[in-house]
Amino acid sequence: MKFRFDHNNINVRDLDKSLAFYRDAVGFHEVGRIEPEDGGFVIAYLGDGATGHRLELTWLRDRTEPYNLGDNEFHLALVADDYDAAYARHKEMGCVCYENPQMGIYFIADPDGYWVEILPDK
Amino acid sequence: MKFRFDHNNINVRDLDKSLAFYRDAVGFHEVGRIEPEDGGFVIAYLGDGATGHRLELTWLRDRTEPYNLGDNEFHLALVADDYDAAYARHKEMGCVCYENPQMGIYFIADPDGYWVEILPDK
Repeated sequence: MKFRFDHNNINVRDLDKSLAFYRDAVGFHEVGRIEPEDGGFVIAYLGDGATGHRLELTWLRDRTEPYNLGDNEFHLALVADDYDAAYARHKEMGCVCYENPQMGIYFIADPDGYWVEILPDK
Repeated sequence: MKFRFDHNNINVRDLDKSLAFYRDAVGFHEVGRIEPEDGGFVIAYLGDGATGHRLELTWLRDRTEPYNLGDNEFHLALVADDYDAAYARHKEMGCVCYENPQMGIYFIADPDGYWVEILPDK
């Protein structure tokens, strides 16, 4: 019996805004969508075009208040093939929220405040 | 400039308990560890032996109170190569926390209450 990673989910408040962010910031594209005709939600899957892993964005149409992100330090971590160019882009976008030059990493925040760690390729 | 999925992090309260859970429930094994000599934390990386994705478990030694997991429905989703056998195992372990037979999925809860979705292989 074996298990393998498929995706991880986060709920978002504005799907279009999140799709634009993940496209512009890290080049992710939609690779699938679940949208029940009478449903109050839309689920979009984002792929990186390299690995088989996916990020699932769930949008509950009725949700208006910000999500409570907890204090469990959940975050996604991505490898950038060009770390310096990535850093310059994210600085320009204004989404860098934490930097740790000693460890050679930094974090960006998505529209809902979820943190995404950016790592250099090794 | 390209970005690819590397891992996602969750903080855990009892690293040994979490390592045992992910080993026994879904067969994940430790593939790396960061443990500063004078540090107050340990980071362990778990792999599924199939994809390159990893689950990062961060253990802050001083943390005693349960983590606030928020209401953003963060969860990890895994594909089981033998869904029925997986379900039987998880029922026996007592970790099944939500079932949706109509969609053909169910969720298990890890020791900190994080939800892990189990999907059939397609």
